[in-house]
Parts: sequence; structure tokens; C-alpha cells
Amino acid sequence: MVPHLITALTGPINELEQRVLESMPAIERWFRLEWMEHTPPFYSSVDLRNAGFKLAPVDTNLFPGGFNNLTPEMLPLAVQAAMAAIEKICPEAKNLLLVPENDTGNSFYRSNLATLVRIFTQAGLNVRLGSMDPAVVGPTELAMADGSSLTLEPLLRTRGRLGLKGFDPCTVLLNNDLSAGVPRSIEHLHEQYLLPPLHAGWPTRRKSQHFKAYEEVAKKFSKLLGMDHWLINPVFTPLQSADFSAGAGLEALQTQVDTILNKTRRKYKEYGIQEKPFVVIKPDAGTYGMGVLTVRDAKDLAELGQRKLLGPVGEGAAEHQIIVQEGVVTHERVHDAVAEPVVYMMDRYVVGGFYRVHADRGVDENLNAPGASFVPLAFSQSSQLPRLGEKPGVSAPNRFYMYGVIARLAMLAASYELEVTDPEAEIYA
Amino acid sequence: MVPHLITALTGPINELEQRVLESMPAIERWFRLEWMEHTPPFYSSVDLRNAGFKLAPVDTNLFPGGFNNLTPEMLPLAVQAAMAAIEKICPEAKNLLLVPENDTGNSFYRSNLATLVRIFTQAGLNVRLGSMDPAVVGPTELAMADGSSLTLEPLLRTRGRLGLKGFDPCTVLLNNDLSAGVPRSIEHLHEQYLLPPLHAGWPTRRKSQHFKAYEEVAKKFSKLLGMDHWLINPVFTPLQSADFSAGAGLEALQTQVDTILNKTRRKYKEYGIQEKPFVVIKPDAGTYGMGVLTVRDAKDLAELGQRKLLGPVGEGAAEHQIIVQEGVVTHERVHDAVAEPVVYMMDRYVVGGFYRVHADRGVDENLNAPGASFVPLAFSQSSQLPRLGEKPGVSAPNRFYMYGVIARLAMLAASYELEVTDPEAEIYA
Repeated sequence: MVPHLITALTGPINELEQRVLESMPAIERWFRLEWMEHTPPFYSSVDLRNAGFKLAPVDTNLFPGGFNNLTPEMLPLAVQAAMAAIEKICPEAKNLLLVPENDTGNSFYRSNLATLVRIFTQAGLNVRLGSMDPAVVGPTELAMADGSSLTLEPLLRTRGRLGLKGFDPCTVLLNNDLSAGVPRSIEHLHEQYLLPPLHAGWPTRRKSQHFKAYEEVAKKFSKLLGMDHWLINPVFTPLQSADFSAGAGLEALQTQVDTILNKTRRKYKEYGIQEKPFVVIKPDAGTYGMGVLTVRDAKDLAELGQRKLLGPVGEGAAEHQIIVQEGVVTHERVHDAVAEPVVYMMDRYVVGGFYRVHADRGVDENLNAPGASFVPLAFSQSSQLPRLGEKPGVSAPNRFYMYGVIARLAMLAASYELEVTDPEAEIYA
Repeated sequence: MVPHLITALTGPINELEQRVLESMPAIERWFRLEWMEHTPPFYSSVDLRNAGFKLAPVDTNLFPGGFNNLTPEMLPLAVQAAMAAIEKICPEAKNLLLVPENDTGNSFYRSNLATLVRIFTQAGLNVRLGSMDPAVVGPTELAMADGSSLTLEPLLRTRGRLGLKGFDPCTVLLNNDLSAGVPRSIEHLHEQYLLPPLHAGWPTRRKSQHFKAYEEVAKKFSKLLGMDHWLINPVFTPLQSADFSAGAGLEALQTQVDTILNKTRRKYKEYGIQEKPFVVIKPDAGTYGMGVLTVRDAKDLAELGQRKLLGPVGEGAAEHQIIVQEGVVTHERVHDAVAEPVVYMMDRYVVGGFYRVHADRGVDENLNAPGASFVPLAFSQSSQLPRLGEKPGVSAPNRFYMYGVIARLAMLAASYELEVTDPEAEIYA
């Protein structure tokens, strides 16, 4: 199923699409060379915004949920990519312990877990679920919508290893972004592979670090393609924590918002874009989609309180550092509702994706919110491989290939980011 | 599209299917460990025969044609596997030179080439076609059925490198099994990656070597699953070249045919199989599908001449060594015609497959002959991943998973085989 694309069919994005397609072998080779130097995250998902004149990643998730939104057609690609990932990291692995978010009864998330279990079982691992939730004291059945069930078991920590009763895994896969903090039970697991590493969790991650790495990646990539990196890179600036509701804190924030708005305005002028610029303000740490605020004028900030500004930052994220980022409008719609593409990756491979669609949100708003629905991106359908020679902007497969490229740039940025924040990295002085 | 399976739904094959499914994680791990020690062929295809009571590979092709028979749904898997293969062998590769069979106007083979070009282009390589055919003296357009065309160019050999005019590849991919011999232009290419290596071509390959390696693999695998390796391993014996039409040569052949028939008869008795055993006689070297003879009684051999016995062995294969192999009847039918599954692999991954269907052939005959048609195996359709818990014999995805496992055993055997025949292998005395 290919959703009808209502992206503006003229303008810079079509030039980008054409350049991306023409440069396919060079781009793939560039990624190959990057992956020789850098390790891809075990899995990831990237939210993109396509403004018609600009295409940029806005969120890079290193503990992706939502695998249930991938179509059955995409699963063999995910299984193959999982095989490749396991083979590289721990070919001798037998047992995989999957550590999910605490269960809240959300049937979509349960379905995500069932999909992950299926993918890794078929990639050749015995998979069981171990919960961090202290309420899980014995095997707990989670009912699924289709009548099947999943079994959560309490984690069992012994000296150097994490497991379940009667289950000693060589690999522990987190599907929990650690927003609630790092439980002691998963620290110092030096005898097992812990994927992703703890410093990929929100207690360590900072969006500013990610977008700094993304800027570096976007500049390199844009040089390869001979284009302005702004076309794929939203301007941003981080702000140290302060009371942003008044006084010096508010002033500093207003100054940064003005700076980003001005930079954006200049770029809009350069490209003849008629849109009104805006910025988004996000907590620097914390689960994506939480506390994202859209601002069109620095003056509006005075009317917002500190609470509104910082929003419900993810549980446990105590710091109040924020980032101010150029907003990227989404001009994609599916069935009249505002939509943004989300791309799923396993190891270095794009395995699928979907449109996140939100009927009640505007083109400049965050769509990762209750009420969103999902329409598969037909990445993995055979007939959906890119076709050279098609007119730019009219071929869904070509559009999806471009999305896969930009999403992989964000994944590569996450890889750079994790190198910088790795507490065990060797220091070359 | 899932063709209706008319395999006998009872008997040992269903036990095998069940055991294979139950052991999926153990099997995948076993393959992972094998691939740590052995290098998979770059690409391969394996013909299987499913007798209902026995499932065995009969041909392992290391220069597979027929990629055009894969469905569009399978191509993303092939692209991803090609990416993984390139990444491991030559990540820095930019240009790929594809060296095909000499063109005979066969539109299916041209379509196979177009598919290979597409796969490797999308995996990130600049692909061009260089022909060994001395008749190709300049760029030659090959018209395709869909109105597009392919360009063949003459090979250009310089000191240590093979290329085309204005095209210096780091990797040369052979899609030519070298039945006509190894041209000097592709010897001693020490500065480039030549895939597969020359000793994978028919001037070096011997079926006896392959099936010897397969026996070793099948025994290991059967031990893992706790089953009789005969269920996946056809008995065979090689015979030195001789005049098989009379005298001592004929006698030796009759003795071997009797031996194989007797061994098979004993196994049939053990499993209560009512079929009449038969053997196939094949040239030990030479393209598969050529000169394969079905024999039910050693006495029949006296009536055949040497010419009939050796058949049209592949061009250039001068030796007359043969192998006598237990015949495996195929009890699969697609639309009433006799069918056998063919599985395609790229690197260590199953990327697709199809049924070779021949309306005019019997269940004990070679189907790789003019008049064959092809029906896709729905390996790669998402909904076609194996389902645990299904009754054996009724689930096409489970059947296909088992086919993928047996085909990978044959691929692994080819890997063992290429290690033994590698002229540059280090000798550990």
C-alpha cells in the first residue's frame, strides 16, 4: 500500500530527490565507508519532516517501539538485518533477553514486543522477556488482541549477569529508554552484551549532542552531493538550564529564539520560500514527543510559564536544559491529515517505515502525540525499490529511498553521538 | 503467490519439518557458527527434490542465472544481502564489472542480467557488463523484452587488472560458470576481487567433491537435530573415467548402480517406503542439468551407448568421470505438473526462490530442461515467515523455511568444497 503523497511537487526537495537518486552508488559507498569507522546503533527509528523545500530528521529513537506498525512484508527484511547484526556482535549467542518498558496495558506496545520476539526468534535466538517493573514478581501473562499472549518474567541479577529463572542470556536487548533512570540490576554487566549500551538511554543522551553530530554528518554528506546542508539540517542551539519564565533566563531564551528565526528567515529568502518561520523548544533530555513547544515569535514566550516551557519532561530527567531548533513544517498529508514519515532501521539497514498521521494537529506541530495513527510506507515492497529515470516527486519508491537516506544520516549521527558519550571510550590525548 | 503444495502430507518429511521449525534458533545459531569458520559463496542457487519421505539438494549452482524468476517482493532482500556481502568483501568498492555468459539472444538470461545489474546498483555500485565473447568488439546493445536495453562491452585486460574502456572496477563478478574454460583475460587478477573465484568454475569443480562435502555437512546437521542424515542426503559414488559402454567399464558401472540401488532399497524398507528406487548418472564436471540419466536397473545400462551415458557434458569438460547418485523422486506438483523448488541465496542469506515446473517430465526425471516454467516460492512475503505451532505439512511458510535450511546446507557444502579446491589455500601439514 502506497499512501498518496501530497508533498509539493516542485522546489528544492525534488532537486534533492533527483540528486540523491543519481548519486545512489556514491551514497551507498559513502555509508559503507562510514560504517567501517563507526558502529551503527543496534536498532533505531527516525522521524522525518518533509517541508517540500527541506527534509530533516526531528527525532532519533534508539529504543524504538512501534515495530508492530511495520507491515508483514517488511518483516523478512527485519529478520535478515537482525541476523546480520547478531552475526557481527555476538554470533555465538543462543539466548536473548528482551527488557521492555513497564507494561501499562497498552496493546500497541505489547504488539510491538510480540513483533520483536518474532523477529529475533526467526533470526535464530531463544527470546524471553524480563521486566524491570518491581510489580512483576513471577511469570505474568500479557494478553494480546489476537488472543495470544506474552510472558513477562522478573529479572534475576546474579554477580556479573542478568537473566531470568532458568534462562541465562548472552545478550540483553533493551527496549526501554531508561527515562526512569538506570536500575542497578542492569549496571556493570561486563559478561554480557547489553544492547543498546546504557549511555544510549535518556539519563545520558542529550538532543543537543545528537543534533551537533547530525550537523557534522549532514555537512559531510552535503559536500558529497554538492549541496547546501541546510536543506537537510535544521538550525538549533542548546540553552543551559535557567528559569526561562522571567528575567535573564527569559531574555536569553528570547535572544536564541530570535537568532534561530532570523537565520531561518534568511534561508527562506534565499530559496524564495513564502512560509513563516517558527522554532520548536524541546527539553534537551527525555523521551521524544514530550514537552515540544512551537513558537513563532520570541515575544510570545513572556506569556508562557516555566511549566509550560519545560513541559512534562520525561520521567526522571531532572535537568532543565533545553534546545531551540528551527521548526520544519510538514507538507505531507495522508487522507487530508497531517503526516510525517518514520523510518525503522536494524543495524545499518532500512527495514521499513510508516507515516505517522494526526488528524487533529497542524503542519507545524509535533505529531508524536495521543491520537496519532499509522500508514505503512511501502519501503520494502519489491516494486517499491527506487527507479532511476522517473520524474522527481512523482515516484513513491524514489521518495522513500530519499527518506531512507536521510534517516540513515540521523542513525549515523547517533553512532557519532554514542562514541562521544561512551564512558568506556579510550581517550587519545 | 503461494502455489498449492501437493506434497504427501504424512511421513518423515513432516517430522523433519516439525523438527526443523522447533529447532529454528539452534539451527540459525549453528549456521552462524559455521559462517564464522567458512566463507559463504558470493551467490548461489540450489535445486531441491522433495520426495515426501526425503528432501535433498540435487544441484548447487555457484553462478546462478534465473534471478529474473525472483518476484519483485524478493528484490529488497537481495539488495540488502548484496549490501552485506559487499560490505564484508570490499566495502570500499565503487565499480562492479559483471561478466555474463556469452549472449545467445535468450531473453530470460538477458532479464537475469538486468535483475543483477539492478540489485548491485541499488546496493551501491556502478555496474557495467563486460563480455568474454570475442565477437563483442565494441559496445553492443542487447534489447530487452520491456523495451529497455543492456550494453555489453568488450573486456579490456591491462597488466594486473580487468576492466572496460574507461571503467576500472575493484570487483569482478562472474555470472559465467566457465564451462568453456578459463580465458586468459581473467587469470591472475591479483589486484581485484574476482567473485566467485576461478576454482568455482566447472574446469575445477566436481560434483563428487560437492556431494562429499554435503555429506559431511548433512551428518553434522543431522547430529544437531538428532535424525538420520539419509533423510536429507542422497547416497552417491564417483566413478573414474572409462569406456562404460562395454567390458570392465560397464561392469564397474553396473556394480556401483547395484550398490546404490541396494542401499536405497534397504533405507526404503527401513522407512516403509513403497517407491521403486532409482539412480541418476551425471557427468562429474559440467553445467547442471546436462547429461543426467535416470536408471532403475543396472541391466538397462548394457543397452545404452557411451554417448548416451555421458550425454552432452558441458562444453570443454573433457573428462569422463561420472557420479552415480541415489535418485530422489519429486512428489511436489504445481497445477498438475511435476515441480521442484529452487532456492536463491546471496551471501549467507536466502533471498528468494521458485518452483521449477515441467509439464512433460516425470517425477524421477531432471526438470532443468527446455520447457520448464517457474512459479515463485513466496519466501520473502512477510506473511510467509515461518509460523511456530502450525501443523506440519500444511503451512507453506514452514515448508519454505525448511527448504531454505536444506538449501543453505548445500551452500555450506559448496563453501567446504571451495576450501578444499582452493589452489591458493595454505597447507597445514
